[in-house]
Amino acid sequence: MKLKAKLLDIQAGGRRIAILDDETASSLGVHSSDRMEITYNGEHLTAIVNIASNFPHNYVGLYEEISKELRMKTGETVEVQLAETPEALSYVQAKIAGKRLRGNEIEMIVEDVVGRHFSDIELASFVTALHIHGLSMDEIEALSKAMVKTGNTLTLDKSPVLDKHSVGGIPGDKTSLLVVPIIAAAGLVIPKTSSRAITSPAGTADRVETLCPVNLTLEEIKEVVEKTNGCMVWGGALELAPADDLFIQVEYPLAIDPLLLPSIMSKKKAVGATHLVIDMPTGRGAKIKTIGEAHTLAYDFIDLGNRLGINVECAVTFGEQPLGYAVGPALEAREALSAVMGNGPSDLKEKATNIAGILLEMVGIKNGKRKAEDLLKTGKAERKLREIIEAQGGDPKIEPGNIRVGEKTVEIAADREGRVLWINNKGIAQIAREAGAPKEKGAGVILKAKLGEQVKKSMVLFEIYAERNTKLEAAAELAKNLQPIGLSRKPEEKMLIDRIPTRKVHRRPFVLER
Amino acid sequence: MKLKAKLLDIQAGGRRIAILDDETASSLGVHSSDRMEITYNGEHLTAIVNIASNFPHNYVGLYEEISKELRMKTGETVEVQLAETPEALSYVQAKIAGKRLRGNEIEMIVEDVVGRHFSDIELASFVTALHIHGLSMDEIEALSKAMVKTGNTLTLDKSPVLDKHSVGGIPGDKTSLLVVPIIAAAGLVIPKTSSRAITSPAGTADRVETLCPVNLTLEEIKEVVEKTNGCMVWGGALELAPADDLFIQVEYPLAIDPLLLPSIMSKKKAVGATHLVIDMPTGRGAKIKTIGEAHTLAYDFIDLGNRLGINVECAVTFGEQPLGYAVGPALEAREALSAVMGNGPSDLKEKATNIAGILLEMVGIKNGKRKAEDLLKTGKAERKLREIIEAQGGDPKIEPGNIRVGEKTVEIAADREGRVLWINNKGIAQIAREAGAPKEKGAGVILKAKLGEQVKKSMVLFEIYAERNTKLEAAAELAKNLQPIGLSRKPEEKMLIDRIPTRKVHRRPFVLER
Repeated sequence: MKLKAKLLDIQAGGRRIAILDDETASSLGVHSSDRMEITYNGEHLTAIVNIASNFPHNYVGLYEEISKELRMKTGETVEVQLAETPEALSYVQAKIAGKRLRGNEIEMIVEDVVGRHFSDIELASFVTALHIHGLSMDEIEALSKAMVKTGNTLTLDKSPVLDKHSVGGIPGDKTSLLVVPIIAAAGLVIPKTSSRAITSPAGTADRVETLCPVNLTLEEIKEVVEKTNGCMVWGGALELAPADDLFIQVEYPLAIDPLLLPSIMSKKKAVGATHLVIDMPTGRGAKIKTIGEAHTLAYDFIDLGNRLGINVECAVTFGEQPLGYAVGPALEAREALSAVMGNGPSDLKEKATNIAGILLEMVGIKNGKRKAEDLLKTGKAERKLREIIEAQGGDPKIEPGNIRVGEKTVEIAADREGRVLWINNKGIAQIAREAGAPKEKGAGVILKAKLGEQVKKSMVLFEIYAERNTKLEAAAELAKNLQPIGLSRKPEEKMLIDRIPTRKVHRRPFVLER
Repeated sequence: MKLKAKLLDIQAGGRRIAILDDETASSLGVHSSDRMEITYNGEHLTAIVNIASNFPHNYVGLYEEISKELRMKTGETVEVQLAETPEALSYVQAKIAGKRLRGNEIEMIVEDVVGRHFSDIELASFVTALHIHGLSMDEIEALSKAMVKTGNTLTLDKSPVLDKHSVGGIPGDKTSLLVVPIIAAAGLVIPKTSSRAITSPAGTADRVETLCPVNLTLEEIKEVVEKTNGCMVWGGALELAPADDLFIQVEYPLAIDPLLLPSIMSKKKAVGATHLVIDMPTGRGAKIKTIGEAHTLAYDFIDLGNRLGINVECAVTFGEQPLGYAVGPALEAREALSAVMGNGPSDLKEKATNIAGILLEMVGIKNGKRKAEDLLKTGKAERKLREIIEAQGGDPKIEPGNIRVGEKTVEIAADREGRVLWINNKGIAQIAREAGAPKEKGAGVILKAKLGEQVKKSMVLFEIYAERNTKLEAAAELAKNLQPIGLSRKPEEKMLIDRIPTRKVHRRPFVLER
């Protein structure tokens, strides 16, 4: 059927959506959420149909995603027809029914995801089915490979290629800013791509961006790595595993992540990693609660690495409090720069040299941790960091004091004497976000006391930084409500951690160890 | 935050969607698919956020669903803020995690569904979780009651109120067109609401619409029923259980229906039914394949009826071939009118008087089937049907010959001699749809041979009706490919029913009895 195109000049959030009125839809035999094939100038694409009763008859409304893809400038005539249901939908339905999928079936699903042939409804149902039924390691492997195959890759002429990744969950985790220069200073290649924060106060890309640009193309990344052995860039626009970005769009609102393993590992495979350390912060208040849970996940990562040709080791790290003292992009970059320059918090340096040490040992270097510590102490890691900053377009002479942090600050003091018994990671993260992080890069929190430290009444527990007074006040108010740092004279005098009022009971069962 | 509203003048398929650009979304702290509260002129509503990089800064784009609800004429300033996550989302997540939900939790979910507080992603995930984990009868009861509570109801001053429903699946099932006048002629109240076809060639509302208007308001329905004891109207716009209409929007593309029981029963409760017969066409090629399956479902209906205060009986009926000979809205109405007038196919009359008979016996009338047959034979049912047609605004003198059917016809003949061994219900339905049904009301199929009948070579097996030659040709072509009627001299000479080529194996496993 020929229809006049009406270009809508707005986007549909990355979706390929076309609008028809009831009558036209009925003549075509399409229902809401069905697929329609649109042909223009010899080019075809599949769109998801939305039905609007007030849309003009015999027109098709095209969101910008479609008109751009078809290179339409004005509303001309297009040929439309009911699209065949993608074969892959039957595999999605098989997964909903609890079946195991074969490699070629998964590959077809991923291709159709990247081709935008599925509606949000179908994607959400698929991801929910994966979450409920679980995935076999064969399925995980096939998903990872299909996600690499349908995306861009970074091809370096060097080997080995080292990499690290953290499964995240604790605020202030700026380890990569030390590990990358240490490894690169050792003469080894480490092309680190990172994400921006979604629900946390800072992602590695947010932190590094206060030192130098992070939004590089694959070509620019190659140049930086060839020059310096390392890089610290934003991976989000590189299309390394575009299927994953589309899966995340439905996983995020549902707060489930059945694709954690393929998501992480496909991106590592796409940059050509041969040796990888996965950091797993573990403990109450981290994503991973117990050592046992960490081991189970670690063996999955190692198994999947084997299948993808990546040597994987996992580091279970202490995750019951923020790493270092600073939380928030600029505050963390300042702390990391200090640490690379030989100062800075000892837990950060201890963790970074441990992880760098494992990487070094994985490629045959003995006494990895001592070697990493040497590279830090001798200033070689600092020189390397400055080289990378310069290669990415930043100022190599930057000093911790040059990094702009929020000018509005408030101190939160202890209301009693005691020892720090716990720090609520999630509470600290929420306060930093309320202060403006990660969007306002100078916003965040500086802890003044950490686990086990003795605190006097009225001593400062933490300081909030913000760029605007309103944000500062909101964060201070939240801090008062959350009381994220727990003090007690002796552990045994404060056994009650939280109290769940009656109406909350069904909403969030009190499970300490999960 | 105050934002200028930009009215988009198009609909988002019933969804409440608002558009922000990245920057504005980031300042508000909302991500794609998050909820946002919009306030205008003292009115609040919750919208789902779509993010568009090319949208003007500090504007919010409002689809017509929102601007209409807020009664905005032009783009004025609105107050927007990140909406609190609905409490019910945590119950949706609990269901995804496999938990059983309590009554009040389900009620909150249904209220948020009707309030359009969930995105397609969340709704699809919920429905998928219901499908995979299943529902307890307590959950089904709570869902049904919540769906009634959040919708309109029909209040008649009479009791008992009788009703019938078919779970569907066989083409040509025009039973209601006989049952309603029989019951009303017996002096009993039967306010029948029906649906239009979604994937079948005709729904009861489509059939009746060729005799009289079916798009009545609740007030008009009350008048018709008070005058005639019965009605046959379209239920789709009455908002009897609006949550169900929203669930169906995500169930349909996924081809799952975990809400079958609450969907049917909530609508029956909403019209005040006290006595209900559920027709369950059963057999190969019907939705319900085996008698055992029918019994399981029947006990669920009866149990749910008890909980809702509706007396339910179920009729397992022969579902291996179409009912009567006609398939398609007008062709079926013509056949049903003939049957009410004393002619017409015997299987249709047999089924209708059986179901009407059960209803009569449920309210204490003895020998229900004979009584129903009497009402048919004596012309009382016909007079009642004409009364109802007149009350709904149709011509009470209508004759079968007055009903306009497709003028383009083609006969499909047997290519061999034999006995009819099977009729592929789905194939017949597809051919009728290809011919134009249900949109083109005169289109459809007339069978000339049914199960067990002896056919000579070149005798007509069925006739296709269409309103347009192109549709007729397409339907004839499909008929040639599908060969929906299977002939053989003796059953044992045609044991192979279908053959599955290699590449289909994983797509649709060959399961005869399910």
